[in-house]
Amino acid sequence: MNYLQDFNWRYATKRMNGKPVPADQLNNILEATRLAPSSLGLQPFDVLVIQDPELRANLSPAIYNQPQVTEGSALLVFAAWKNVAPGQIDQYLENIASTRNIPLESLNDFRKMIEGSITTRTDEQVHQWAARQAYIALGYATAAASFEKVDSTPMEGFNAAAVNEVLGLDGKGLSAVAVLALGYRDEENDHLANAPKVRRPASSFFTVYKGS
Amino acid sequence: MNYLQDFNWRYATKRMNGKPVPADQLNNILEATRLAPSSLGLQPFDVLVIQDPELRANLSPAIYNQPQVTEGSALLVFAAWKNVAPGQIDQYLENIASTRNIPLESLNDFRKMIEGSITTRTDEQVHQWAARQAYIALGYATAAASFEKVDSTPMEGFNAAAVNEVLGLDGKGLSAVAVLALGYRDEENDHLANAPKVRRPASSFFTVYKGS
Repeated sequence: MNYLQDFNWRYATKRMNGKPVPADQLNNILEATRLAPSSLGLQPFDVLVIQDPELRANLSPAIYNQPQVTEGSALLVFAAWKNVAPGQIDQYLENIASTRNIPLESLNDFRKMIEGSITTRTDEQVHQWAARQAYIALGYATAAASFEKVDSTPMEGFNAAAVNEVLGLDGKGLSAVAVLALGYRDEENDHLANAPKVRRPASSFFTVYKGS
Repeated sequence: MNYLQDFNWRYATKRMNGKPVPADQLNNILEATRLAPSSLGLQPFDVLVIQDPELRANLSPAIYNQPQVTEGSALLVFAAWKNVAPGQIDQYLENIASTRNIPLESLNDFRKMIEGSITTRTDEQVHQWAARQAYIALGYATAAASFEKVDSTPMEGFNAAAVNEVLGLDGKGLSAVAVLALGYRDEENDHLANAPKVRRPASSFFTVYKGS
């Protein structure tokens, strides 16, 4: 398994060729996204998986007509919770209790920790925190895509209010924070398809404290 | 390559056994972290790699004495930029030009796009944006660790001001946003070592639009 090779192969694809991503591979990418870690394990975001070409065309103006939206095969919209409702904490704790076959009451201290962590923050802070968790999962999606040799383009350049409106997210307590196009690179038309990857050199990106 | 198996094996380890992570494996995890995608490709965060046991002990109170800080083998501190200085944009563009062997002037439009993206935001917004990019890389680090069969614990529960002070980050325009302990699970003392993984069911986590 050479995951570093796959990470080097990956790049933010600018043009895609319309080839569909097979269902098995898409499902693996989604499963990786679902398995990503999150703070408190709460997964405070939803993921919209938009294969429907018509809906992607409708969304395109809100994403400034970036071609991958319609040239890709699926679009993932990461929508972070705008707040955490008590019912969402209940659901989470019930999920833990049933998955691990333990009494719900044994999670009372954990419940208090979660509630304390949420109620001491403003709605905006909770949303920012939720957005960060979504970005971990966004990372997992791009990583899994590279293992499947599926190209992906993470995008922040969109009008969140317009995306929310097209997808009816406002009424669900959600707001779009990142979008990921999945598909296959169009080597002929993507001028970056064969460009060497640019990264900060390890010597400036990392500061290492080895100790004595 | 069964990366989903590795993601299922991974969990937020509560207790570690002090066994050192070999240099090759740590280097692979760091390289994965460096290869993570980021908005505009700017990588607006630094990663401190703290192997030094004394420094980790000094940091421990700022991380509320969570045992993984000292029981692990290395601690990664993800420190997001508090703003983007013009010199940092220059460095990035020079890196692109030299890596791809293209004239710096050919990046003038890209420079304007980056500058426009930064100058329209407040410092706080830039820092929040930088933090999100760090979280993608945090995700890559946890994913790579799972492939190396190295345990990891992402942590947000720390006093950022105290961590910044111990590491002298304030003067460098950085602020700690997440911490990752790397090491090996202590199966005897970690009550979660063999607990089934809890995730929101796919049916509620995803909303799928297949189209006609």
